[in-house]
Amino acid sequence: MRINKILDLAKGLENKKTVGVAAAEDEVVLKAVEKAVENDICNVILYGDEMKIKEIAKENNIDISKMEIVNCKSSQEAVVKTIEDVASGKADLPMKGHITTGELLSVYLREEYGLRTKSTINLVSVFDIEKYHKLLIVTDAGMVISPTLEQKVDSINNAVKVSDALEVENPKVAIVGALEKVNPKMPATVDAAIISQMNRRGQIKGCIVDGPFAMDNAISKEAAEQKGIVSEVAGDADIVIMPDIEAGNIFYKSMVFLSGAKVASTILGGKKPVVLTSRADSDETKLLSIALSVLLA
Amino acid sequence: MRINKILDLAKGLENKKTVGVAAAEDEVVLKAVEKAVENDICNVILYGDEMKIKEIAKENNIDISKMEIVNCKSSQEAVVKTIEDVASGKADLPMKGHITTGELLSVYLREEYGLRTKSTINLVSVFDIEKYHKLLIVTDAGMVISPTLEQKVDSINNAVKVSDALEVENPKVAIVGALEKVNPKMPATVDAAIISQMNRRGQIKGCIVDGPFAMDNAISKEAAEQKGIVSEVAGDADIVIMPDIEAGNIFYKSMVFLSGAKVASTILGGKKPVVLTSRADSDETKLLSIALSVLLA
Repeated sequence: MRINKILDLAKGLENKKTVGVAAAEDEVVLKAVEKAVENDICNVILYGDEMKIKEIAKENNIDISKMEIVNCKSSQEAVVKTIEDVASGKADLPMKGHITTGELLSVYLREEYGLRTKSTINLVSVFDIEKYHKLLIVTDAGMVISPTLEQKVDSINNAVKVSDALEVENPKVAIVGALEKVNPKMPATVDAAIISQMNRRGQIKGCIVDGPFAMDNAISKEAAEQKGIVSEVAGDADIVIMPDIEAGNIFYKSMVFLSGAKVASTILGGKKPVVLTSRADSDETKLLSIALSVLLA
Repeated sequence: MRINKILDLAKGLENKKTVGVAAAEDEVVLKAVEKAVENDICNVILYGDEMKIKEIAKENNIDISKMEIVNCKSSQEAVVKTIEDVASGKADLPMKGHITTGELLSVYLREEYGLRTKSTINLVSVFDIEKYHKLLIVTDAGMVISPTLEQKVDSINNAVKVSDALEVENPKVAIVGALEKVNPKMPATVDAAIISQMNRRGQIKGCIVDGPFAMDNAISKEAAEQKGIVSEVAGDADIVIMPDIEAGNIFYKSMVFLSGAKVASTILGGKKPVVLTSRADSDETKLLSIALSVLLA
């Protein structure tokens, strides 16, 4: 599968990255990092209740022998210690354990750790969709509810980091909405036009941005031709920028559940990526998401 | 294919419906109605330049021998005559020919013809998606940009008309957004909660409404269970209500272009449905959309 390129790139990196798992007392999470270690993708430090972690590992025959454990009295302490170690460089990137995304990011974003940047924090996802001729990078399916123009520009820059990591040169970025024409009643189409022009003016670098597009013109040359769209990006997008979290999330879920697409995701926008896997993710997605985040660390 | 149920239901209806094609001088449209007549789905009246229509038919070997032609001097006149005949009952429903959607609907909605109702006009689409266990009715992928709560209620009622026509009893309606929890910062989730309660209070009849859902909980029982969602609708939706035109359109295009889904659409909300096929539609979709509209006429 094309998406396994992520694993190939992440395996045996020269300077091996270390993932710090915040509140590691969780079977699903431990299994995920076990697989990552098996696959030589990263080192792992487990932050949490050492007794509990060892107990869960034993009960489920999870090999944590190669992982350092930092004993913490509470999940709150585990989060803080994880982020402290990422800030100091002892670990390279944090991974969400048995806590909420909010509990992890609220600490991650504290000024004192210097991990926060001016950029928007985005969920960036890489899809392997059988009917599309290449990997498709999509943002944002889960972080920013209703992005402003500035936030959309950030999301492009975050997505371009991923395409760079996947060795895609000068990626084609499609800003999608409900149609390919600018309609003043549809802010998504207006933003798309503005951002495309910003790209032509060199205000967004390292990619070719065009929009607005309807989804079909972005991913099908035939559909674009039928609409008479002349664009380098049309029908050949490497990156798709979604208008809002609803469109992004519905696309994400539909691809995974109704198209059998494979997917890997990471959280970008801070100094270090954040690994965020959900219970609903397949084992494959969890491994791919750790590998993708490691590549971006 | 399951979606052929639309053809089976529409074929040889007792009182055969008549489709009035507004501005019929168009090869693609003539081929579509030729197929519909061949399949015994409807009678057809062609409104437009008689000479041109006959010329196009001859050049492309399209059999229009069974179709009445009403000669019109301009496409504007063709639209008006079509709508007049639908209003008078000479025709049962209008179909968009070589004109824009706006040109057709602006005339269709004139008070004088009495075709307008208090309801919102929606694009309602029926999908046959291989990985889903039944037909899925989705609205709105193309008409209402950012529906209000009242407009969402209308869209449910319009979608229920389609499920009735497809003989689905007491359809399950899922109102989807980016997540299954109510988040005051996400109007889509708030509207979903309100509308669900309106349904329990009997303010929306003939269906079981629940929401908010993320798309996966709406169409996958497993995903719903993982989230601990207890709902008759979860994982078994007959109807999905999209939060806005971006989410709806991106879902529509993704299913057709990235999932190989089959689809039929119709415009509901007025006294009569409107057939609106686009050049980009496959011949199959065009035929299915005529049949679906005929069923609703």
